[in-house]
Amino acid sequence: MKYLIRLRFDGTAYCGWQMQKNGLSVQECVMNAVRRVFGEVRDFSGCSRTDSGVHADDFRVSYSSEKTIPCDRVPAALNSVLPRDIAVYSAQPVPESFHARYDTVSKEYRYRIDPSRYRSPFLENRAWHRPGEYEIEKMNAAASRFVGTHDFSSFMAAGSRIADCTRTVFFAHWEMGETLDFTVSANGFLYHMVRIFVGTLVLPRVWDDPTEIDRILAERNRCAAGPTAPACGLYLHKVTYPSEAFLPE
Amino acid sequence: MKYLIRLRFDGTAYCGWQMQKNGLSVQECVMNAVRRVFGEVRDFSGCSRTDSGVHADDFRVSYSSEKTIPCDRVPAALNSVLPRDIAVYSAQPVPESFHARYDTVSKEYRYRIDPSRYRSPFLENRAWHRPGEYEIEKMNAAASRFVGTHDFSSFMAAGSRIADCTRTVFFAHWEMGETLDFTVSANGFLYHMVRIFVGTLVLPRVWDDPTEIDRILAERNRCAAGPTAPACGLYLHKVTYPSEAFLPE
Repeated sequence: MKYLIRLRFDGTAYCGWQMQKNGLSVQECVMNAVRRVFGEVRDFSGCSRTDSGVHADDFRVSYSSEKTIPCDRVPAALNSVLPRDIAVYSAQPVPESFHARYDTVSKEYRYRIDPSRYRSPFLENRAWHRPGEYEIEKMNAAASRFVGTHDFSSFMAAGSRIADCTRTVFFAHWEMGETLDFTVSANGFLYHMVRIFVGTLVLPRVWDDPTEIDRILAERNRCAAGPTAPACGLYLHKVTYPSEAFLPE
Repeated sequence: MKYLIRLRFDGTAYCGWQMQKNGLSVQECVMNAVRRVFGEVRDFSGCSRTDSGVHADDFRVSYSSEKTIPCDRVPAALNSVLPRDIAVYSAQPVPESFHARYDTVSKEYRYRIDPSRYRSPFLENRAWHRPGEYEIEKMNAAASRFVGTHDFSSFMAAGSRIADCTRTVFFAHWEMGETLDFTVSANGFLYHMVRIFVGTLVLPRVWDDPTEIDRILAERNRCAAGPTAPACGLYLHKVTYPSEAFLPE
């Protein structure tokens, strides 16, 4: 039987999702927990790579197992053997052909900025502490220029080797809550794309003229955009699959 | 000059505010930071004791120093030498006669319950994970019975030696936000009082009949009330002083 699980993790202590030689990955912890509960599994796949220190509210993992466990018992079973900064909150059956990474239709990220003058212990490693005044309407005018299908080469980490940098952004929006939050949804993201979006949208020159974003996009050059915002503010917030993926085979 | 500073702390790593032989206290960390910035100080006093693992959004500390530092520079100076789970966010001058603990008029605590079925990594050590359905209206009907001047002996940790257990509760209210939050304000609190309030207000027998609270109060016996809710959900949320305390001498 193939399972799709949803989980949250605080990425502070990890080198990211992807297994690596020089650090503890979220993948390694989740795989160990799955093996303890299900024994050996096949086709273990996460929905996305995430950077070191990046968090997730809705991360998806799929795997096939010979062992059948009722889905409503899976989260508690896995949580009992997972570290406290990782927790599963849902499990469902999916067709054997389903793949948590390749079947993604869209992903939504959230980026949190703490604009307060002094750092808060409760937002430590959970938001980018960047004190200041923010012009949210102007930031939204600029963010809306990302919406649509564009070549996002200017918003990709230098040195990435990707042939096609065209992605479609569905929405990009700032909102003030407990923190100043940027939410962006797209059919796919380039390496560091959300963090470079944020590092660019906080620049006063972009507030003064939102078409600055069009100019940066047109340059197709990483140097045209702003700096990369720190990882600690970033959350993988939502992952969407085509509803057909969940129909029984 | 005498200073009053306000600070937040995540109490997870500490044995509480009060200096102790067998653990690291918040007081020790704040005193060390104050000494590094101001040199030796007199009349160092915190507004309250807090238990191990309890947090604060608004903790107050007063001290007198020979050294004069402009108040708007004090928070950044102290934060640069404080650990990351403690942060100062305000400083103001107070009369030499002012005392952060004795001059308190009222204190407000908040208690956070995470009612979700599965634990969240983002609420780890920040809320009491107690999955279930909560009848908020009934909990508020019961909470309102605390309001007024009562002998709260039933809601004090067994073994406490306090001659007069009479306190005045100004308000006590539950509200659903990101978590289920209980806010309670009083002119003073007995040892474990808020945590026993919470442990009692979540009992279905109290939901069925809010006058159960009156009966428990009348017994003046710790055994009549519910269990003590865990420390990790509790926050010292607000501290009030008479406005006269701030007038220059």
